[in-house]
Amino acid sequence: MLNAKLATQTHNPSVIRIGESVTVGGEDLLVIGGPCTVESLAQMEQVARHLAPSPVQMLRGGAFKPRTSPYSFQGLGDAGLTILSEVSQRYNLPVVTEVMAVSQIEAIADRADMLQVGSRNMQNFDLLKALGEVNKPVLLKRGLAATLEEFVFAAEYILSSGNPNVVLCERGIRSFDPYTRNVLDLGAVVALKQITHLPVIVDPSHASGKRELVAGLARGAIAAGADGLIVECHPEPEKSVSDARQALSLEAMVALAESLRPIAAAVGRRLPEAIPAEVAIAA
Amino acid sequence: MLNAKLATQTHNPSVIRIGESVTVGGEDLLVIGGPCTVESLAQMEQVARHLAPSPVQMLRGGAFKPRTSPYSFQGLGDAGLTILSEVSQRYNLPVVTEVMAVSQIEAIADRADMLQVGSRNMQNFDLLKALGEVNKPVLLKRGLAATLEEFVFAAEYILSSGNPNVVLCERGIRSFDPYTRNVLDLGAVVALKQITHLPVIVDPSHASGKRELVAGLARGAIAAGADGLIVECHPEPEKSVSDARQALSLEAMVALAESLRPIAAAVGRRLPEAIPAEVAIAA
Amino acid sequence: MLNAKLATQTHNPSVIRIGESVTVGGEDLLVIGGPCTVESLAQMEQVARHLAPSPVQMLRGGAFKPRTSPYSFQGLGDAGLTILSEVSQRYNLPVVTEVMAVSQIEAIADRADMLQVGSRNMQNFDLLKALGEVNKPVLLKRGLAATLEEFVFAAEYILSSGNPNVVLCERGIRSFDPYTRNVLDLGAVVALKQITHLPVIVDPSHASGKRELVAGLARGAIAAGADGLIVECHPEPEKSVSDARQALSLEAMVALAESLRPIAAAVGRRLPEAIPAEVAIAA
Amino acid sequence: MLNAKLATQTHNPSVIRIGESVTVGGEDLLVIGGPCTVESLAQMEQVARHLAPSPVQMLRGGAFKPRTSPYSFQGLGDAGLTILSEVSQRYNLPVVTEVMAVSQIEAIADRADMLQVGSRNMQNFDLLKALGEVNKPVLLKRGLAATLEEFVFAAEYILSSGNPNVVLCERGIRSFDPYTRNVLDLGAVVALKQITHLPVIVDPSHASGKRELVAGLARGAIAAGADGLIVECHPEPEKSVSDARQALSLEAMVALAESLRPIAAAVGRRLPEAIPAEVAIAA
Repeated sequence: MLNAKLATQTHNPSVIRIGESVTVGGEDLLVIGGPCTVESLAQMEQVARHLAPSPVQMLRGGAFKPRTSPYSFQGLGDAGLTILSEVSQRYNLPVVTEVMAVSQIEAIADRADMLQVGSRNMQNFDLLKALGEVNKPVLLKRGLAATLEEFVFAAEYILSSGNPNVVLCERGIRSFDPYTRNVLDLGAVVALKQITHLPVIVDPSHASGKRELVAGLARGAIAAGADGLIVECHPEPEKSVSDARQALSLEAMVALAESLRPIAAAVGRRLPEAIPAEVAIAA
Repeated sequence: MLNAKLATQTHNPSVIRIGESVTVGGEDLLVIGGPCTVESLAQMEQVARHLAPSPVQMLRGGAFKPRTSPYSFQGLGDAGLTILSEVSQRYNLPVVTEVMAVSQIEAIADRADMLQVGSRNMQNFDLLKALGEVNKPVLLKRGLAATLEEFVFAAEYILSSGNPNVVLCERGIRSFDPYTRNVLDLGAVVALKQITHLPVIVDPSHASGKRELVAGLARGAIAAGADGLIVECHPEPEKSVSDARQALSLEAMVALAESLRPIAAAVGRRLPEAIPAEVAIAA
Repeated sequence: MLNAKLATQTHNPSVIRIGESVTVGGEDLLVIGGPCTVESLAQMEQVARHLAPSPVQMLRGGAFKPRTSPYSFQGLGDAGLTILSEVSQRYNLPVVTEVMAVSQIEAIADRADMLQVGSRNMQNFDLLKALGEVNKPVLLKRGLAATLEEFVFAAEYILSSGNPNVVLCERGIRSFDPYTRNVLDLGAVVALKQITHLPVIVDPSHASGKRELVAGLARGAIAAGADGLIVECHPEPEKSVSDARQALSLEAMVALAESLRPIAAAVGRRLPEAIPAEVAIAA
Repeated sequence: MLNAKLATQTHNPSVIRIGESVTVGGEDLLVIGGPCTVESLAQMEQVARHLAPSPVQMLRGGAFKPRTSPYSFQGLGDAGLTILSEVSQRYNLPVVTEVMAVSQIEAIADRADMLQVGSRNMQNFDLLKALGEVNKPVLLKRGLAATLEEFVFAAEYILSSGNPNVVLCERGIRSFDPYTRNVLDLGAVVALKQITHLPVIVDPSHASGKRELVAGLARGAIAAGADGLIVECHPEPEKSVSDARQALSLEAMVALAESLRPIAAAVGRRLPEAIPAEVAIAA
């Protein structure tokens, strides 16, 4: 893998801008929070109002949801995008949301600040190539059983199609122990920072599937050198329409983010200062 | 999984027709052979001429190839479809080829008898739903780390969108031993025959990645109750542009197919009689 | 692995004698049946009486049981060995039972015909070396996550210590799908027959953990080239003190064994003729 | 698992004393360093002299080595124990070394401060029970494919046999990506701290198999809540007789240990102060 002349493998770490105010890959860590699924405007308002004054700088939330069963709720779709976009502007928090099909790219790129490729689509090469022509950054999640070589080459599909702004996300790999939903591959985070110039963030929510494990994994990821985190949180976690078992409460989300500050400092990184609530909401 | 009311789980085994002369899921076994990649008309002619008189009843060959690296050969594309279609008609052998994107469906459905969804796209739900509206059978390969529940639900995406003609393919799952490329999950074959009414075939070539293991796995699959096989073969295996290590020679392919006859009989199944070469070619 | 000069890798397949009348590794297939755990003399009598006239030629049953929890029933120990030995002689069925410690070797070798090393002890090198000095054949089960290289080298520990009579047993490897207890690695069976001269048998009971999958896997294993099977059965499967979910009834056990006859013939092997019940019991 | 009344699952975290001066499980972190294999007195002297003044408080080194192949170097055995014991006393550094068999326990317990059970023996129940009767702490490494339930129950075998002083060690699980030797399961560390009262340390050397990944994993483990680390280092890593690819140089080992100080502080833990070299050596 390392012998090849790859676009992912030049030497200066990339710092990628998302929206107007946020970057990832530099000294500043990026913490993204939000629910698995966009359920309503009220829900997203509540999330954004709570997170805006905290070190969480960006929102997540699914409008188009990849569900194992065709009979499960598939997300609010376009209406979900509208909610995300409104809340994003009102609270000055850029948003990332998943794109599942080439046909959705335009609508999502119009209203979100970053497009997420989910694990199931990591080798949907048609989608990756199309995202290479988009003028927004892409969050590429590692496939459930993807090797690092396959992960890097998936990013390469996007870069070689013209979009250099790819953020890698380690979100746990499938393994044998039912105790956790997946196994966070922390070694992959360390390795990807060495073999690519792309920012690497970690999703401790999907990696563990249990909210009581999220904070420990999040802290471990930052200490190991991750550039940020994407964490599921919900105003009423146990009522979440999906992945209820792994979502943090909004209070726990903010507390987790704050707990990262000394760890960030210990490894030469920085977490943004919290913003006074009145300023955050005015924005 | 079994409690749900699923389209895949009614009780009578489905017998699915492919092209005009071939069926899968009934008493007759289906053996599909051909190269990983369509390389040239001469290559496919040679394959078809050799297989037509044998119990191999159907051709495989990739025109659009999903490759880990964007810099690897991506297949002949449309030109490959034309070759497949010509050879199919000349030798009266239906063909299956992979579809990687919604935008390719029409062209492939026009010229192939069956559309294959590869492992990487098993949960490309956009593609699955679109294939639900196609009037041709679909060969759905299991994802590298897909549970049986996820595999069955992926089929359910196609069935619930209107296409009942889905054939499942177990092709090996990812595991820890570098000795084989993947691990054939024979228990999955037995289980899928019990919990769905869909035909289930096995790909021993990808499951092992080594040609010397293919025949053993193929015989085991038939004895365990598989409805058929899809096997890679090539006129000059070591010169194959992809997966050279796992392709059988054409002679070995025919010998393997013939060796299945007594095993098929032992489990109450049947392999089609070989056709005299002059008849096969005349067709 | 194949370049090394290994005792497991000379070329003529080994035929190993177990007790006085049974062999494994030659033309004759070996089917071993019996309960997970020796529970009582009555239970083992019932099993042996039922199996003696069938093609099942050998008994299994655990006296010393390796249990995940120290608080689970650990087996009848020495009393279990006595039961096995009595029943074995009365019905002329050799027995195999597990040895978990060097200190148990002598007692077991005295009363059983074959000593089994369980998956958890596949790399208990102290035990393997001690078994190299025993004058009875050893059934070596593959570890849950052992590579073929590690499996072969574990056998090599026994052979290089002086005991050439090792039978390998593929019993499923650990994987990600909770649908089955383990995944039968059929490719390992095919490969081990090619790279070693040792007999290779298959345990479809532990490989699947579900009795409805056992027969399919058993037939697949024989067609793929396995030299035999070791299958769990019980007079009242649902009352088994361990592994109840995977044991066959005695009737199903005999039916399974009989169903192997045409498959054995199809791959040039042979299953012993059933013995009239009165003769079997007289013996 | 959590419903059971288990000895591992009372609520106050255990602080375990090793030798006279070291503890693990309390506020102080424990860092153990040393080579994979004891090669000579000169080698161990060099290691100890370098580490004694650093925050590394304890030595590791294998005298009895579990090797995949019986033809690989099996360790210095008793002579290795003597070297460990001499160096330990001279530099006032307690030592841990692996025990592979019941017959080795007495000799090792005489000369080492802690007995290590390797991954391959995690379910060698005979050995575990015997260690329950030893008056020294035990370092229990997780099996390559052991679930958390199995790991906790393995500890339970030792505790229920009378020895409460068990330290758990997560050392990577087997997975599919050849890029790293194993996958560090950081979620297991977080979970084990929640579901047991035992100290949990991490072995980033075996977890990754690559020295360039060790420091990142080590820092991540401490931030996630691990009670310590066991790290391979060697005076001349590339000349190590085993696992050369993963050993740190002695300088890198000390630098790694020092880099943990701010991370420890960030999560409310403490690393012992470095001791002036002349004092350390005098001791």
